[in-house]
Amino acid sequence: MNMVELIQKKKDGETLTREELVFFIRGVSDDTIPDYQTSALLMAICFQGLDKEETFALTDAMLASGDVIDLSALPGVKVDKHSTGGVGDKTSLIVAPLAAACGVTVAKMSGRGLGFSGGTIDKLEAIPGFRVQLSEEEFIAAVQTSGMAIIGQTADVAPADKKLYALRDVTATVDNVSLISASIMSKKLASGSQAIVLDVKCGSGAFMKTEKAARELGALMVEIGKNAGKTTVALITDMDQPLGRAVGNSLEVSEACETLQGNGPADIQELCLSLAGHMIFAGGKAQTPEEGKKMAEEALSSGAAFETLKRFVKAQGGDISVLSDPSGFKQALHSAPCIAKSDGYVSQIEADRIGLASQHLGAGRKTKDDSIDLSAGLVLEKKVGDPVKKGDTLAVLSADDPEKLKLGIQETGEAFVIGENRPEPRPLIHAVLS
Amino acid sequence: MNMVELIQKKKDGETLTREELVFFIRGVSDDTIPDYQTSALLMAICFQGLDKEETFALTDAMLASGDVIDLSALPGVKVDKHSTGGVGDKTSLIVAPLAAACGVTVAKMSGRGLGFSGGTIDKLEAIPGFRVQLSEEEFIAAVQTSGMAIIGQTADVAPADKKLYALRDVTATVDNVSLISASIMSKKLASGSQAIVLDVKCGSGAFMKTEKAARELGALMVEIGKNAGKTTVALITDMDQPLGRAVGNSLEVSEACETLQGNGPADIQELCLSLAGHMIFAGGKAQTPEEGKKMAEEALSSGAAFETLKRFVKAQGGDISVLSDPSGFKQALHSAPCIAKSDGYVSQIEADRIGLASQHLGAGRKTKDDSIDLSAGLVLEKKVGDPVKKGDTLAVLSADDPEKLKLGIQETGEAFVIGENRPEPRPLIHAVLS
Repeated sequence: MNMVELIQKKKDGETLTREELVFFIRGVSDDTIPDYQTSALLMAICFQGLDKEETFALTDAMLASGDVIDLSALPGVKVDKHSTGGVGDKTSLIVAPLAAACGVTVAKMSGRGLGFSGGTIDKLEAIPGFRVQLSEEEFIAAVQTSGMAIIGQTADVAPADKKLYALRDVTATVDNVSLISASIMSKKLASGSQAIVLDVKCGSGAFMKTEKAARELGALMVEIGKNAGKTTVALITDMDQPLGRAVGNSLEVSEACETLQGNGPADIQELCLSLAGHMIFAGGKAQTPEEGKKMAEEALSSGAAFETLKRFVKAQGGDISVLSDPSGFKQALHSAPCIAKSDGYVSQIEADRIGLASQHLGAGRKTKDDSIDLSAGLVLEKKVGDPVKKGDTLAVLSADDPEKLKLGIQETGEAFVIGENRPEPRPLIHAVLS
Repeated sequence: MNMVELIQKKKDGETLTREELVFFIRGVSDDTIPDYQTSALLMAICFQGLDKEETFALTDAMLASGDVIDLSALPGVKVDKHSTGGVGDKTSLIVAPLAAACGVTVAKMSGRGLGFSGGTIDKLEAIPGFRVQLSEEEFIAAVQTSGMAIIGQTADVAPADKKLYALRDVTATVDNVSLISASIMSKKLASGSQAIVLDVKCGSGAFMKTEKAARELGALMVEIGKNAGKTTVALITDMDQPLGRAVGNSLEVSEACETLQGNGPADIQELCLSLAGHMIFAGGKAQTPEEGKKMAEEALSSGAAFETLKRFVKAQGGDISVLSDPSGFKQALHSAPCIAKSDGYVSQIEADRIGLASQHLGAGRKTKDDSIDLSAGLVLEKKVGDPVKKGDTLAVLSADDPEKLKLGIQETGEAFVIGENRPEPRPLIHAVLS
């Protein structure tokens, strides 16, 4: 097999065989295919696409490039959850304890964030002492102790995806639905769970700006999951304004804790209960997702889910005192409000600009090697639909560097759109695909 | 400026600015842009194209990446000639002496061949002692001695093109009309002549399979040349069957010599006289291309052109005895005929398969680092339109290795299509664009 012929075939709009895609991914893994040929093929794929069978084959090949985590020592149906990411998305920290409290086994690997605020692993690192790197044995033991564990992704899981993603990022070949799906699903399939609940975000703060694009991605990932024999469901959810009020690593952990104590923002509580309901259903602990959601509500109101969170954090070495008392987190040196300049209703909060503001504050990375300021971030005091008066505080921002704070405030001010009329509310969950 | 943004822009179908293309070519030249970004942009260009202004800017940037040869020490209008290449294309060896014999100054740089048989430089190396590498001073002196010289391309001419071409070759991004035009024309413009006669081939043995594609390429190259202030003309000529009868390096030199002695195949003589006519006109030595062609005919019949060839070969150190007596060339160890299997007329000789046959024989390179067997090749005994009887010799092939000879004979046999009726002849010159 010859890589130039493969590139030419895809460039001409032909279909690649399973063998050709295996050859490609093997060559990426063992560095026998040079990056310049890989990027040429990726660009050709962006123009010509991959059909369903090609996408399945690519996912399988990427999965086969590394280890598959063996979760067989754990009881019951293991259920994983994945979010395509957005601004203020701390759902994993809430959903996993909700599901685990209802008897679902959650053995989850998460990533770090690029752009916007950090990923789940960055957020967990805001908890003093929390260990995100566990050996496979420690990981299994942690799940056995608390019903759930979350660790950073190991290098051995779908290593071909790591290389491909790094290359896509610098060659403008990120935005192809098959490449995105294969990237996400190869890692999810390698993580060893039998069921996967996907949270596919759409809107200004999401990778997929439109509901249509998010549905396309969600549907393809569900097909990949089913093709691999996994129970898979995708919720298409809203990310047109930030989720909840907190954006930034330790701030989001605090908000997750408040939510698990019954004091969270309505949107995040509602979304997390729905996601947990699907996980509980997928894990065989409820007859329907609705029954699963009711069980999650009980786990929330009884405090069982918050207790699960504490057990989980403790099992991974974290200081659980900060979960009840956020003053234990390292605090940013400076904070300042972003002030409304006119009267009216908040008609829009551009989530991507809020993400950019949090990046300005130091809460997110601009490049992979940037360090992150876990205490920096912002808390929204107004959300879409809220009435505002000139001079009201729209958000409170915090950072160590006053210059960064200034940049963040300016960006936040521009993210808020104040209109005369109260806008029609957008649905929180646009669709459920299974 | 940022390469990822450039790639994204072109991917989205936007127009790149002159500054962006200069940035790109500079980065290719000084290796600040990694190959994987270059190949991604090249693939995006293959899908989205470059408009005329972008193509001009790309050509200029590639030209500016290296030296421009100074031919001002030479008298009169310097005229260059370029062929897009094909099977049995030995025209440069005939056209340059014809034009030079009529007073046109021809200071030409040529390339080596990839695929099929060798390039002009490979063919010249079949002449014992011939030096294809001259210093710029030696080059100028050689032209002053014999009115013409042909040397291998130096590394200093459009070095960015060299890098880009090497990358295009291994990333299936060769076939874009703007990239091809910019590649050819940047080198032609750097070669320092004031006028350029382009021989753009079309048909099964050409890079451009259809007349339409060849016209598109020719027209764009003419525009690039004119935009750079050069007199430029493109002849769209036929390459559906091999040109002349000889394919292979020393065999083609012999055929060129026979042609200059008035004993060449009709097609090659006719095409070379036309090309030379355009060069003589472009060089200001005739009032029209037709008058130029008449002058070339006289230079042929008087023997003046053959004398020019001998002076040129001698000035570059070659053994001129082989020009009159081909037995002085190194001879291949084995030769064998390809035999007709049925009666009828030759309705087609697939030039690309003949090219492949010559590659099998060892006359062409499969990869850039392959060595070439200068004595290997084939001579067609039948051409399209000729009547054949079963058992007739279609071609005589020669090679050092009997196994290669076998492969070549099989491929040649498959290249010949024998039909019941004499086919309509294809025109030799499809169009002249200026």
